[in-house]
Amino acid sequence: MHYRLQELQEILAREIPITQHLGISIESYDKTGLTLKAPLQQNINHKSTAFAGSLNALLTLAGWGLLWLLLQERDMHAQIVIQESMSSYLRPVTRDFSARCHKPDPTHIARLETTLRKKGKARLELQSEIREEDIVAVTFSGRYVIFLEGGEVS
Amino acid sequence: MHYRLQELQEILAREIPITQHLGISIESYDKTGLTLKAPLQQNINHKSTAFAGSLNALLTLAGWGLLWLLLQERDMHAQIVIQESMSSYLRPVTRDFSARCHKPDPTHIARLETTLRKKGKARLELQSEIREEDIVAVTFSGRYVIFLEGGEVS
Repeated sequence: MHYRLQELQEILAREIPITQHLGISIESYDKTGLTLKAPLQQNINHKSTAFAGSLNALLTLAGWGLLWLLLQERDMHAQIVIQESMSSYLRPVTRDFSARCHKPDPTHIARLETTLRKKGKARLELQSEIREEDIVAVTFSGRYVIFLEGGEVS
Repeated sequence: MHYRLQELQEILAREIPITQHLGISIESYDKTGLTLKAPLQQNINHKSTAFAGSLNALLTLAGWGLLWLLLQERDMHAQIVIQESMSSYLRPVTRDFSARCHKPDPTHIARLETTLRKKGKARLELQSEIREEDIVAVTFSGRYVIFLEGGEVS
């Protein structure tokens, strides 16, 4: 695993300890996006499917993690917080699940970087989803706010 | 605690076991709504405030629990699932937190009951929120689908 992914995984486990109970870990990261995964068993509900709160948590963190990686790659130290999100639970999730956050268009990333360097603050809307057997089960749209910092990414 | 609240608490703990790690329990239930609570410590994030995923989980369950109680009171056995939700994280939550789901207007509840008895299925939009020192920190709107059953509420 790339050292940045390793660092992201450690940050999630250390700084947001509930992610360990949710069983969240990084599945993959490539030029199209970041995928986080979690096991069904730890997140099961009364219908033996995945609890909506767990699905939402994974989706929220997929966007947060993607932004964290994008900023690290640009050597930008920032605080990232979610401001608003919308989730549509289209189908039950019946097995271990993965949430993929799609990397924004390069022009959006460039604009984010410019705004951040100029104003110290920017917003970005990210789309994530959970699929099961290649059929979309949950869609998620999250608006994140990024605050540039002088210090460490925290 | 009223036996129905006791039962709801047991269902949450047993059927959605992650709620125990989140530290979720019932705070109160009255004619205006249901309040669930959770401790900050188990749900802390990288900014020493409450993790958005935990806030969303509590809000989702406040609506679910309120519907469960409303249906129990009307002796209706049903499956309740969330279909869509929208959360706005307006302010950080810096201490133990409570999510309150507001009981819908009696006319809406009556309409829900009629639709359920007639069609076996109904939808209801519920509003919940988390306040800190009486200032709204998170707003949540959730659309739930209810399927009437012959058997036990599960």
